[in-house]
Amino acid sequence: MERIPILRMGRLLLVTIQVDMHDRLAMTLQDDLTTRIVTDRATGVLIDISALDIVDSFIGRMISNTAAMAKILDARTVVVGMQPAVAITLVELGLTLEGVSTALNVERGIKLLERDGACA
Amino acid sequence: MERIPILRMGRLLLVTIQVDMHDRLAMTLQDDLTTRIVTDRATGVLIDISALDIVDSFIGRMISNTAAMAKILDARTVVVGMQPAVAITLVELGLTLEGVSTALNVERGIKLLERDGACA
Repeated sequence: MERIPILRMGRLLLVTIQVDMHDRLAMTLQDDLTTRIVTDRATGVLIDISALDIVDSFIGRMISNTAAMAKILDARTVVVGMQPAVAITLVELGLTLEGVSTALNVERGIKLLERDGACA
Repeated sequence: MERIPILRMGRLLLVTIQVDMHDRLAMTLQDDLTTRIVTDRATGVLIDISALDIVDSFIGRMISNTAAMAKILDARTVVVGMQPAVAITLVELGLTLEGVSTALNVERGIKLLERDGACA
């Protein structure tokens, strides 16, 4: 399996990261996601990382970059399900995920996007 | 990563299968899912298999069993995102996924569950 599935829910796209990211997979995800934002006219992207116990600088940057790409395409990104240890690591790595909103879980992420009009 | 994340959306639970299933992972998923159906009072389960190019009899049975367990717990299961090749394989394997509803994608799966009152 070389692709991370992107699920559409109304105007939102949901990506669940479960596997270890490597360069090619990350590139494929960014390609797929940007394409889908345009074709599905998505206004919000939810990236669920609840399955990740650790996040290294590669994944941290990948998430930041993906959010930046989505932003240019007028879609807002919310990272959901971050584990406490991951938050600690990100700060220690100096990655503050600028421009990326976070929410405790998918439900709250959807509410956040709804509040900002991303689901309209 | 030894767990497949289960995302909650209202009264529904969403599972995206992306990795190759092995015995232990399947057991863990079934344990987690049945627990979550009870704790989250879920009435519907969506299993997204759009990332699976092939489904063997093990995964087929795992999905059937999971649906049967969910049913006993009063939750309905909908398998979404099945690829054409997977449908062909399932029928050839004689696995007709009895008791499991299917839908083209997550959106349609949610609609199906809404229609049946699983989101109420």
